[in-house]
Amino acid sequence: MPTTPLSIAFVGLGAMGAPMAENLIKRQFRVTGFDMRESAREALVAAGGHAADSAKAAASGADALVLMVVNAAQARAVLFEAGALAALSDGAVVMLMATCPPGEVEAIAAEVVRSGRHFVDSPVSGGVVGAKAATLSIMVGAPQESFDKARPVLDAMGDKVFHVGERPGQGATVKTVNQLLCGVHIAVAAEALSLAEKAGIDGRVLFEIMGGSAASSWMLRDRGPRMHEPDPTVASAVDIFVKDLGIVLDAGRAAKTALPLAAAAHQMFLAASGLGHGARDDSQVVRAYRALNAKPANDP
Amino acid sequence: MPTTPLSIAFVGLGAMGAPMAENLIKRQFRVTGFDMRESAREALVAAGGHAADSAKAAASGADALVLMVVNAAQARAVLFEAGALAALSDGAVVMLMATCPPGEVEAIAAEVVRSGRHFVDSPVSGGVVGAKAATLSIMVGAPQESFDKARPVLDAMGDKVFHVGERPGQGATVKTVNQLLCGVHIAVAAEALSLAEKAGIDGRVLFEIMGGSAASSWMLRDRGPRMHEPDPTVASAVDIFVKDLGIVLDAGRAAKTALPLAAAAHQMFLAASGLGHGARDDSQVVRAYRALNAKPANDP
Repeated sequence: MPTTPLSIAFVGLGAMGAPMAENLIKRQFRVTGFDMRESAREALVAAGGHAADSAKAAASGADALVLMVVNAAQARAVLFEAGALAALSDGAVVMLMATCPPGEVEAIAAEVVRSGRHFVDSPVSGGVVGAKAATLSIMVGAPQESFDKARPVLDAMGDKVFHVGERPGQGATVKTVNQLLCGVHIAVAAEALSLAEKAGIDGRVLFEIMGGSAASSWMLRDRGPRMHEPDPTVASAVDIFVKDLGIVLDAGRAAKTALPLAAAAHQMFLAASGLGHGARDDSQVVRAYRALNAKPANDP
Repeated sequence: MPTTPLSIAFVGLGAMGAPMAENLIKRQFRVTGFDMRESAREALVAAGGHAADSAKAAASGADALVLMVVNAAQARAVLFEAGALAALSDGAVVMLMATCPPGEVEAIAAEVVRSGRHFVDSPVSGGVVGAKAATLSIMVGAPQESFDKARPVLDAMGDKVFHVGERPGQGATVKTVNQLLCGVHIAVAAEALSLAEKAGIDGRVLFEIMGGSAASSWMLRDRGPRMHEPDPTVASAVDIFVKDLGIVLDAGRAAKTALPLAAAAHQMFLAASGLGHGARDDSQVVRAYRALNAKPANDP
């Protein structure tokens, strides 16, 4: 199929990007990767890919560019400052898969399209587990033609590909909404635990009951048990939700949309980070609640 | 077994109480019911129970009294003003199964115990569906001896009976925490929908994606689809959460516990009620978000 991109540049080989790139290699795409860290480039080569020593070199003549960088600023730097966009073949497809503010995605998309390339807004959810197993959810905002071109590449990385709208930024909005729900669900589980602990209820029993009732959420079942551990292994850090709920609230500001629960949850993640727990597992937002609602020291 | 209560007074034969009383009858308990509404008393008799024309008459000589009334004030009225407590046999068990503030439950318990009866704080979750199918979750705060006496009666109405603590009020606290989570989960689903709709995302697609991701909650999957209906059949009303999140916040005040997410969610249910939607299905809290975040009329 001539419309299938065969040669793919992949920039950002981190905890998510590396296994995503490897899944492309397994599906017989020719993948040339770039990451600032040499060890990440070497790992890609060991997995059967190719390494380039700049983003521009990786993109040179490629049919597609996947961006799994940290944020929108890095995406801009790769595309416009490092010259990756201009190095792509004419009509190539740029897939921005990092979590970025919807407004930024729209602006980047406009610039990419002006250069004669396709832009596919395609953030993911499913974490490192989903990235490894190629079971990511991918939320796409793109015109139909651009989506069709990107589809084989996306299908190699995720098994739930949703075309949520024709406008770039709409994929980012759905991802933003996803983070809004996830962030509030983690914080409210901690809030519930905090009230129960104050009344002398065993938190483990509480979450056992709540996890099997109408009060359940995916996050309560996943993060709840880790709220009882003093310092659990980090699946995703408090500071990720400081950032992501920040993106949620920026999107709300841009759209002039009031988001009272997201705003309140953000305060609790900010407080947890300010208390020195930003690098801990995000379940540790419970520490902000415990700081607020601890029994006084002289309480029996 | 001499410790099994055989003769049960049941006060409050509403949407929940009536099927709960019928499940007791099916398990061969002798049930004498009272409700202000004659039709409710007649329905109990038709189901094989007995009707009394006052709460005191129903309680007369009974081994147990189940209270499935509207609130703590009604429980007090039945027990202390209408004379049901004094009419019970010595050592009888009073089961308060309505959703009441933990502090009120504690106070009522103290008075019941002073009269020489057992008190079992035992609120339920699972709704009318659970009440009919005898699959309620029952959260019990009571001393072990009292719990043991109540157990056969509770087992006839629910299949998930949790003894969460030895103190009356602890069952009510767990129920309160349950309502905290449920209320916030409904409100945040509406908040998420509100942000997505502003960006032109189809809400049905949004909830399909979120319902299968880490962003999911039981309430999002249950109430989400009803947020797209203009006036869905009422499973539980907005005003129930106005009341129940009020109880949550009262419990927080009593325990001096900050509950920022519950407080924000309560505001949205209050606003929905204030906009005239208090009797609608609780999914219609989304109307408060739409009132806040609707596109202006002159927006294209």
